[in-house]
Amino acid sequence: MAPRLHKLINRPEDLVDEMLEGFCAAYADIARCGGDRLVMRAQPKAIGKVGLVMGSGSGHEPAMLGWVGEGLFDVVVAGEVFAAPGPENMLAGIRAADRGGGALVCVSHHAGDRLNAELALELCEIEGIENVEMVLLYDDISSAPKGREAERRGTAGLFFVWKMLGAYCEGDVSLASAKALAEKVRDNTRSLAVSLSSCASPVTGQAMFEMGADEMEIGMGLHGEKGMGRQKALSANETIDLMLPLLLEDLPYRAGDEVLVLLNNSGSLTLMELFILYRHAAARLAEAGIDVYRCWIGPYATTLETAGFALALCRVDEQLKALWDAPANGAYMKQL
Amino acid sequence: MAPRLHKLINRPEDLVDEMLEGFCAAYADIARCGGDRLVMRAQPKAIGKVGLVMGSGSGHEPAMLGWVGEGLFDVVVAGEVFAAPGPENMLAGIRAADRGGGALVCVSHHAGDRLNAELALELCEIEGIENVEMVLLYDDISSAPKGREAERRGTAGLFFVWKMLGAYCEGDVSLASAKALAEKVRDNTRSLAVSLSSCASPVTGQAMFEMGADEMEIGMGLHGEKGMGRQKALSANETIDLMLPLLLEDLPYRAGDEVLVLLNNSGSLTLMELFILYRHAAARLAEAGIDVYRCWIGPYATTLETAGFALALCRVDEQLKALWDAPANGAYMKQL
Repeated sequence: MAPRLHKLINRPEDLVDEMLEGFCAAYADIARCGGDRLVMRAQPKAIGKVGLVMGSGSGHEPAMLGWVGEGLFDVVVAGEVFAAPGPENMLAGIRAADRGGGALVCVSHHAGDRLNAELALELCEIEGIENVEMVLLYDDISSAPKGREAERRGTAGLFFVWKMLGAYCEGDVSLASAKALAEKVRDNTRSLAVSLSSCASPVTGQAMFEMGADEMEIGMGLHGEKGMGRQKALSANETIDLMLPLLLEDLPYRAGDEVLVLLNNSGSLTLMELFILYRHAAARLAEAGIDVYRCWIGPYATTLETAGFALALCRVDEQLKALWDAPANGAYMKQL
Repeated sequence: MAPRLHKLINRPEDLVDEMLEGFCAAYADIARCGGDRLVMRAQPKAIGKVGLVMGSGSGHEPAMLGWVGEGLFDVVVAGEVFAAPGPENMLAGIRAADRGGGALVCVSHHAGDRLNAELALELCEIEGIENVEMVLLYDDISSAPKGREAERRGTAGLFFVWKMLGAYCEGDVSLASAKALAEKVRDNTRSLAVSLSSCASPVTGQAMFEMGADEMEIGMGLHGEKGMGRQKALSANETIDLMLPLLLEDLPYRAGDEVLVLLNNSGSLTLMELFILYRHAAARLAEAGIDVYRCWIGPYATTLETAGFALALCRVDEQLKALWDAPANGAYMKQL
């Protein structure tokens, strides 16, 4: 199945800047563009808050732009499509995020994101900017085996980290404890994705890769990275029965655990399909004695118009449940 | 460009019921399934409220399921994919929605939806159920010329009616005034859609129609109904420059007006494209002296995985702005 090649854009070289302008025009009460491809809160917090900053390639919208706001991130730095922003832009983001409480740079584990964040931290050192920490985040069980978690990729399950870390950093907390909280959520999170189709780059106009109409790939990354291989496309229930046991075994999640569930739409899956998938996942979790505290179903971290989804779980305790339920007001993540 | 034929479902004949089960399992704090394919508020309002009920074919998710909740609809009745629910189900919906203040049946103008709602109202008469009104809603300027507005189709612009009518009916209002409010919002709303690709029915597994990779159709309806014809696919700015003048002339919207803007994703357009489209629409509205009060950008009424979008405008006064900003808590429509 060929992806859609014509995109409703103007010049490919302008698309990131035009996207940011459109986003900030649409949600001016929540976010503003700050130059250097920064998107920051329209109303920055008072002095003393731990600043949360994240760089991200574009093409995953609403991630991360949509999670700038009260109870969420302070600054997001946008890169080109599927490419991390450079160290100078990350440095600008760190400066903007630090309101006197230091800055925590959250890195979704991919080689480019990590490298650019590390270079930005070196620039901070050269420039005498202190009180900056970096936390490496990963969740995708298909990208490295159990026991080598730190080699895994960051994917849609990081949604849990963003939400809870954002809520945590609204309080009077230290940079070190914010980093520890991010690691705690990460270490309780696992995700796995499947894809039914590829997407086309709006820059090159070319399909990222080819997939047959009746194929499915388990474990594909957010940029089409290889997972556990291709197979014949399955039904909804069969797909959940393949994915969920892998997730449950990996942490492992056990009877009596409480979890948050995310069914993330990679782009062009329908909500109809996601609700049908959730129905079976909820039934299987109940059979396993695992209690769903809350769930989110929708497009949170997309790969352009890829047809696929990720199933992510996060084990929660009372602290994490309270952070999950705390108010949030990003353009694409609202908690009442 | 061929749409995706494999869907992550189980048996096609079960898909609506499984979708409803999954939805209600996911959002049990907001909505519950009530038999007869009803989705109703988890916590019904106290006696006396005007009950809002809406029937809708499936395949448009999150519409309408996602708009059941506080500040929104009381009951939504789901039909088969792209087919209105029958009169018996609509009658069950009316019974469930009426909490002593009567029930307003909102009908998005399509032949099947209208017919089934009218039959349900006849059943109400036969059964002696009083205080039930119906309001016919339409917004799509491509489906009938100016002056024949009542022949137009209901499409994504009705989003404005649902939100404001929902807020209005939380107050102590009469059935007649609720109907008048719905008509007021409708009469200030216009929309126009474009599509770049078709979708495939999850029931038949067949594409709904064929479109070339470099074609675009202006004015396509929510079920693939013909619009103003096909043409070569345009850039983002060209597309807005084609659509926006048609919308502005139709009401007409004039310098000094305040409007709400919706950019509705028909399914598989990317948010990146929608932000780029919004950027130009906002600039053109500013040039025309029209002030954007708020905007929403995302998938609100989809046509499965169709690649396309609708641009909708609603002219607002102080009453409508207050209703727009009133709190809402549906699974897919949250206003803080």
